[in-house]
Amino acid sequence: MFEAKLIQGNLIKKIMEGLKDLVTEANFDLSPGGVSLQAMDSSHVALVALMLRGDAFENYRCDRPRSIGMNLVNLSKVLKCAGNDDTMTLKADDTQNNITLVFESQAEDKYAEVQMELMDIDSEHLGIPDNTYDAIVKMPSAQFSQIVKDLSSIGDTVTVSVTKDGITFSTSGDVGTAHITCKQNTSMEKEADHTTVNLEHPVTLTFALRYFVTFAKSTSLSHQMSISLSKELPVMVEYAMGDMGHIRFYLAPKIDDEESMDDS
Amino acid sequence: MFEAKLIQGNLIKKIMEGLKDLVTEANFDLSPGGVSLQAMDSSHVALVALMLRGDAFENYRCDRPRSIGMNLVNLSKVLKCAGNDDTMTLKADDTQNNITLVFESQAEDKYAEVQMELMDIDSEHLGIPDNTYDAIVKMPSAQFSQIVKDLSSIGDTVTVSVTKDGITFSTSGDVGTAHITCKQNTSMEKEADHTTVNLEHPVTLTFALRYFVTFAKSTSLSHQMSISLSKELPVMVEYAMGDMGHIRFYLAPKIDDEESMDDS
Amino acid sequence: MFEAKLIQGNLIKKIMEGLKDLVTEANFDLSPGGVSLQAMDSSHVALVALMLRGDAFENYRCDRPRSIGMNLVNLSKVLKCAGNDDTMTLKADDTQNNITLVFESQAEDKYAEVQMELMDIDSEHLGIPDNTYDAIVKMPSAQFSQIVKDLSSIGDTVTVSVTKDGITFSTSGDVGTAHITCKQNTSMEKEADHTTVNLEHPVTLTFALRYFVTFAKSTSLSHQMSISLSKELPVMVEYAMGDMGHIRFYLAPKIDDEESMDDS
Repeated sequence: MFEAKLIQGNLIKKIMEGLKDLVTEANFDLSPGGVSLQAMDSSHVALVALMLRGDAFENYRCDRPRSIGMNLVNLSKVLKCAGNDDTMTLKADDTQNNITLVFESQAEDKYAEVQMELMDIDSEHLGIPDNTYDAIVKMPSAQFSQIVKDLSSIGDTVTVSVTKDGITFSTSGDVGTAHITCKQNTSMEKEADHTTVNLEHPVTLTFALRYFVTFAKSTSLSHQMSISLSKELPVMVEYAMGDMGHIRFYLAPKIDDEESMDDS
Repeated sequence: MFEAKLIQGNLIKKIMEGLKDLVTEANFDLSPGGVSLQAMDSSHVALVALMLRGDAFENYRCDRPRSIGMNLVNLSKVLKCAGNDDTMTLKADDTQNNITLVFESQAEDKYAEVQMELMDIDSEHLGIPDNTYDAIVKMPSAQFSQIVKDLSSIGDTVTVSVTKDGITFSTSGDVGTAHITCKQNTSMEKEADHTTVNLEHPVTLTFALRYFVTFAKSTSLSHQMSISLSKELPVMVEYAMGDMGHIRFYLAPKIDDEESMDDS
Repeated sequence: MFEAKLIQGNLIKKIMEGLKDLVTEANFDLSPGGVSLQAMDSSHVALVALMLRGDAFENYRCDRPRSIGMNLVNLSKVLKCAGNDDTMTLKADDTQNNITLVFESQAEDKYAEVQMELMDIDSEHLGIPDNTYDAIVKMPSAQFSQIVKDLSSIGDTVTVSVTKDGITFSTSGDVGTAHITCKQNTSMEKEADHTTVNLEHPVTLTFALRYFVTFAKSTSLSHQMSISLSKELPVMVEYAMGDMGHIRFYLAPKIDDEESMDDS
């Protein structure tokens, strides 16, 4: 038996908002320690890894580890039945090929129960090594989201460059050439509004901009996000959800002759 | 001569919002007692009945009963000329084939006058008997609206089931199976937030969900709505507008073998 | 060298909002006195004239008069990179065929720099005589916008009629006939909410309504706008931006036999 209850069921809605444009079908791995998901996007370019710690749920019970496949587009439709302040309970009987979602209003006067069939999804588990990065930038999620949206109306690729002073996002297209720099800034009262740079080596990498726009759909999950970069590695874009866990997106940099020359 | 003035002209806008997706042309019946409208939707499945009491208008004068046909889509366009706080006056001269709508701002610095041609519309008046129902459920309009919208992303039909404890809306589709139950609840301070069940006999009936979604477009008319059900009768969905009158929607239940078995 | 800095960079965004649906490419005339633009719309029916006074900028430097051509659709995309509270600096080196826009957040932690190529655009400068008008009406911009939008769902042309009491906008179409009158009104506390009529001669002119709808996209520039009318002249619709300058739209009236008769 698997059963997990969240007081803020809303969180699952927000997570799906960030996932469903990237991945349409995925396996959730249920284990005594928590729920995780790892999936490539449909074009096999980006990887998403979700982790929700079991002990951060109100109730959490997982008798045996199990992998359950779901259509995330359908799951998003089902989640519409959850009010923003509803609690959410997930239940899956080990002997059944379905999952039950229960949404309850806090006044306990509304009770919604939805049953979805599970799917068999082939997927290989990729080991993601725990890398150390040359540069880690933390910044307000809303600012990151705004920048990648703005740049995407100018160009298709984004060059991300980190120095000790800040992070610069650049693009160019028919319209023109744009550079947006966010400087290290810790003067705001709220820590989530800070922009901080943790730098081992300056780094400059180029990515497909539209993936960053998709990653930024997780903005509502967390006031602050982080971008971790190393010359040899995919970028890691992370939205941490306090004690609850995190969602991480990985994207390999574009490699072309021009860029190699820039980096030299 | 017919003349009627409403201080909150906005109300007519809201009424049209709820009608225009169901009925494109209809006869308004003007009488000394008030204004009424009765019309089948274009697919002849649902019936809508509107009633506005003459004495609830600021001024109301109707010299002789008369039926005037209007295109509701055009009427909705005309109503855009009314500001949300404008008064609205309707005037129809018995010898003319048109109606004049006058919208005045409260500061009396804006005066809009629109004249529309009337139409000849064939319609038969259906007698709607004043039924007693097996079950009458009152609930917040916004909650009803949310539920039918949410369910419509899962299935095409909704089974409504009322017991003494509450009302359950169920649907199923490729996505899954959903049940949403609203329990009787009178603990809220405002009466319009209450959910109450008035039950003679438990009843379970199935309807085409998309009509409920259309009915719910009248949500802005009233904080609370009611659903009245009887095994042998069309459901009545009502939005009461205080002393002003009401708008009622009637929809025949779906009858199929499976459901007959459920009911037995 | 040309360089101009605006504290409220947002203003340029709003100006482009009003221009880009009317004109896709235009020359900006840079001079020591300020920045101006004059362009016909693509159908050569309406004329727009923008004027921004140099001394209203924070910094303003223009070494020699110069005309720079820009694609306004691209410029609008570039302006998305400016936050609403950012300052905006425009820079153009006389020896280069490009312009640089710099957007800086007030906290100075975000710095965006965009470079756009300039274009060669053929344009003839039309002398706009400084006319005296038979009637000048000032009214709240939002009210003008609402009226022309509302009327455009009823008809294609608008007849504007000014008497000493106020201004009337009329249209008619398949839906019906509408007249909206705004009376002279100076009772509001804020002057920008006033409607005032400055009349030499009553005047009635008819225009293509869709241009008025496009002009009204400048609503956010100014709380109050003005309409200046004379029998022999194009209407002038003006949004004044305090000390900063103004944007003016000119549109020739429609002339047909019917109207000539009305005017006689």
